[in-house]
Amino acid sequence: MTNPIIIGIDPGYDRLGWAVAQKNPGAWHIFDQGCIVTDRQEEIEQRFQQILDDLSAIIQRYQPQEAAVETLFWFKNQSSAMKVSEARGLIIANLLDAGIKISQYTPLQIKQAITGYGRADKKAVEKMVRLELAIDQNEAKNIIDDTFDALALVICHQASRKLKKI
Amino acid sequence: MTNPIIIGIDPGYDRLGWAVAQKNPGAWHIFDQGCIVTDRQEEIEQRFQQILDDLSAIIQRYQPQEAAVETLFWFKNQSSAMKVSEARGLIIANLLDAGIKISQYTPLQIKQAITGYGRADKKAVEKMVRLELAIDQNEAKNIIDDTFDALALVICHQASRKLKKI
Repeated sequence: MTNPIIIGIDPGYDRLGWAVAQKNPGAWHIFDQGCIVTDRQEEIEQRFQQILDDLSAIIQRYQPQEAAVETLFWFKNQSSAMKVSEARGLIIANLLDAGIKISQYTPLQIKQAITGYGRADKKAVEKMVRLELAIDQNEAKNIIDDTFDALALVICHQASRKLKKI
Repeated sequence: MTNPIIIGIDPGYDRLGWAVAQKNPGAWHIFDQGCIVTDRQEEIEQRFQQILDDLSAIIQRYQPQEAAVETLFWFKNQSSAMKVSEARGLIIANLLDAGIKISQYTPLQIKQAITGYGRADKKAVEKMVRLELAIDQNEAKNIIDDTFDALALVICHQASRKLKKI
């Protein structure tokens, strides 16, 4: 049976990392990856509109069947946590509209799935993501953190899909 | 110039109060009002789907041109605050999709607009909402708090529309 095309989303209103990939027999195929960056000068409604527009275009183009979205686990700043949660709601609305099955993962679950260790540091996670997806080190230099997180989510979801939905 | 049809929304994932009304010369016309209540037994994605479906049906039916949405001001519980923020993001996505102009108000701004006093208690706000909308006391008994908040938002927005957007 073919594995689904998965979109991984690291939610944010400032920066939103995303990646679309599918695990084929033997190797992953990465359709595309990137980061939606919104204009800090704009009002929040305009920034949310941009996220909706950009995300819709990505979904339209690659037609992912399943989505893996990171949950917000902890935060220093209440006001920014509420905005990130709002962005999460916005993203969930967009995915529901498109009929995409949503799974959500905590940072701990993602690290656990990628490295086998829930408290792994960022470098360890990125290394395992590179190895799993066969991304060489030069290529990896062009991938920013937000996008690496989205790639990690895709791998995490593929590994977890047969387990109970979280 | 005709005033816009306004939808007032008191956001929540558990209960979402809403009201659609328009200020005509001389009197308000309330198109409809209610509260979307989601099933606590369901997973959050299903509850969000229900909010999207119900809200879309309301927007479809009454075609509001402007929306007034309450902001989350303070909270006791982090986890529920994040879910309410997610619901707010979901609602904003739905309104943006429908091309409805969104304004957001804090509880203080709503109380100030309705009663002239930002620290007014719930009873004082409800009384002024009843008087403004010519809802008699018997009728008011059938209106629950969440819906009263949505009605207050509509009045607040009508009063504030000519001022700078918040």
